[in-house]
Amino acid sequence: MGKSNLDLVKECDRFPYYADDPAFYTAHMRNYHAFRVNGCDANLGYILNSVVKKLELPANSWAIDADNRTVTLMTDPDATPEQRSELIAETLAQAVKQDTFEILRGWRNEKYPVYAPGGKFLLEMERSATPLFGVVSYGVHSTCYVNDDNGLRIWVPRRSKTKQTYPGMLDNSVAGGMSTDEHPGECLVREAMEEASLPEDVVRKNSTAVGCVTYFYVRGAQAGGETDLLQPEVEYVYDIKLSADVVPKPCDSEVEQFYLMTVDEVKAALANGEFKPNCSVVLIDFFLRHGILTPENEPNFLDIISRIHRRLEFPTASHFEGTNASDSKQ
Amino acid sequence: MGKSNLDLVKECDRFPYYADDPAFYTAHMRNYHAFRVNGCDANLGYILNSVVKKLELPANSWAIDADNRTVTLMTDPDATPEQRSELIAETLAQAVKQDTFEILRGWRNEKYPVYAPGGKFLLEMERSATPLFGVVSYGVHSTCYVNDDNGLRIWVPRRSKTKQTYPGMLDNSVAGGMSTDEHPGECLVREAMEEASLPEDVVRKNSTAVGCVTYFYVRGAQAGGETDLLQPEVEYVYDIKLSADVVPKPCDSEVEQFYLMTVDEVKAALANGEFKPNCSVVLIDFFLRHGILTPENEPNFLDIISRIHRRLEFPTASHFEGTNASDSKQ
Repeated sequence: MGKSNLDLVKECDRFPYYADDPAFYTAHMRNYHAFRVNGCDANLGYILNSVVKKLELPANSWAIDADNRTVTLMTDPDATPEQRSELIAETLAQAVKQDTFEILRGWRNEKYPVYAPGGKFLLEMERSATPLFGVVSYGVHSTCYVNDDNGLRIWVPRRSKTKQTYPGMLDNSVAGGMSTDEHPGECLVREAMEEASLPEDVVRKNSTAVGCVTYFYVRGAQAGGETDLLQPEVEYVYDIKLSADVVPKPCDSEVEQFYLMTVDEVKAALANGEFKPNCSVVLIDFFLRHGILTPENEPNFLDIISRIHRRLEFPTASHFEGTNASDSKQ
Repeated sequence: MGKSNLDLVKECDRFPYYADDPAFYTAHMRNYHAFRVNGCDANLGYILNSVVKKLELPANSWAIDADNRTVTLMTDPDATPEQRSELIAETLAQAVKQDTFEILRGWRNEKYPVYAPGGKFLLEMERSATPLFGVVSYGVHSTCYVNDDNGLRIWVPRRSKTKQTYPGMLDNSVAGGMSTDEHPGECLVREAMEEASLPEDVVRKNSTAVGCVTYFYVRGAQAGGETDLLQPEVEYVYDIKLSADVVPKPCDSEVEQFYLMTVDEVKAALANGEFKPNCSVVLIDFFLRHGILTPENEPNFLDIISRIHRRLEFPTASHFEGTNASDSKQ
C-alpha cells in the first residue's frame, strides 16, 4: 500500500487546526512564543520555546513577555525595514558565532522577506533562519507538461545527489524560493532558466498563473537541522504547457536529470514517496485542476483541497504592481 | 468604486475565523448550539440560539445541553439514516404547521444530505431547513466558455425574474444544488440539460473537474427568511469549454437568457454586484486558474484563494465511487 494523496498532503500541512480539537490546540500553542515587531499589530510567526531559550536576545533590542508568550523586536514603531533587518541580522550573527542552532549551519546567504498586514514589507532575514522564527516563506512552483496525441505527460526532474536538502528526490519541473524584492512572475522566469534551461520567451508565452498552494509545515528529521520548527509556506503555482520538441535540460548543478513521465508514472512515484514533500502538493493541485483527481475518484477530495489552500494566521505578501502595494515595498 | 474581488469573497465567506481574534470568536460561538446526532462524534452544524428557542424539540427525540450548547438527535447509535431523517422530518413538519420559521415557507420538497466523519451518509433533511441547522450544503457550479481567435468569453445566464431566490441576478453558466444520492458528475449533466439545454454527450466530452470552492456563508436579508442563519457550502467546480457554435439556451423557467460576455464585461458586472454572491466566487476561482487574476494584478491574491477553499469545521461528503464510500451511502 503506497501513500494516499491525503497522506502526502498531511506530510506538508502538519500544524494542528483549532477546530479539530480546541483544547488540544490551545495546549499545543503553549509550546510557542509569537514573534512580533513593535508597532505592528500581528503575530508574524511562532517561535518554539526551546529556541527562545537558546537565542541570545539583548534587552535593548528585544522584549520577551513570558505571560503572553511573545518575543517582540523593539525597534521604533516608525523604524525602516533596514533598521529592523539589521537587528535581526545581529542576533543571527551572534547565534552563528556560538553555533547555537544546527539549522544555521546551512546558511544560504539569501534574504527572505517578512510582511505586515496588507502585504507591506516589514523586514528581511537570512533564509535558513526563517524556521527559527516560524515566519511565512514564499516560492514559485511550476509544472511543465506536454499534452498531445500521446496523452498528458509531465516533466519531472531529479534533484542532484549533492544538494543540501532532499538530495536525489523527485521535484517539480521548475521551483525555487523567492527572495526579497522578487515577484512571482520574475522568479518563475529566473528559475526556469537556472533549473531547466528554458528561455524567457518560451516561459512567458507558455506559462499560466493558476493560483497558489499554502500549507503549514512542521520540520521533521528529513528537512535537516532542529526538528519541530515551523515553516508556513506559500507557493505561487504556474502551469507551463510545452510542445513535445521543447526539452528542459539541467543548467545549474541542482538538477541531475529530467524525465517525461505519464500521469500514471507520476502517481506511482507520489504513492512511493519519491517526491520532495511540498512538490507532491503542487502535483496534487495540478491533478485537481486538470480533471485527473475528481470527486468520484479521490475519496478525500474536499479535505485535500482545503488543506492545500490553508489560511495562514500570519500576514502574507502582496505582489500587486499597482500604486499602493509597490509603494509599500520601497 | 465598484466591489473588489475580496469584497465579493467576503460577502460569501462571512463566518469569523478563530485565528483573527480568538476572544471574539469564542464569544461569538456562544450564539450557537452545535447540532449533533447520538453516536456520531462530530458537530454537524451550528444552530442559532434563537432557533433552538423556537424549535419544538420533543424530549423523547432530542436532548438539549444548555451548558455545552448542544442539540442532539437522540436516535439509537445504530439507527439507520431513514430513522434519523424521519425524526428530523417530524420536527420540521411541526414547525411548518405552526409557521415557526419564515424560511420554511420556501419549502422545496428536495432532500439534502448530512454526512458523518469519513463522508458517511447520516441523514437527510428538507433543503429549505438546512440553514436552521447550519449544516453543509452541496452543489455543482460550472463555467461554460469559448476561447478562440476572438479571445476568452464566458456564457452568463440571467436568473428568471420570478425565481424565488436572487431573481434577475446574473449566474454561473450551469449551477444547482445536489440532492441526496446524487454525485457531482451526474448533477452537472442533469443541470446542464435543465438550465442550458446542453446534451449529455457535449457536457461529458467538454467538461473538466477543476476542484471545488468552499466558504462559510451567513444569510443576510437578500437571501430571504430569517437572517444570521448559517450556510457552510461546498460547490464542486467544472469548466466546460465549448466551440463558438454551441449555444446554451434556457430550458426550464429558471433562466431568462444567456449572454456571451468578455472577461472585461464579467469583471465589470462582478464589481457592480450583478452576480448572485456565490457565483462571484466561482468566477473568481475561474479567473485565478486561467491566469486572469495573478499575484501581480490582484492585491488580495493569497487571502482570496484561502478563503474560497475554506476548511469547514464539519464532516463533509465523499463521493468516491470505490467500494467503501458507495457502500456507506446505501
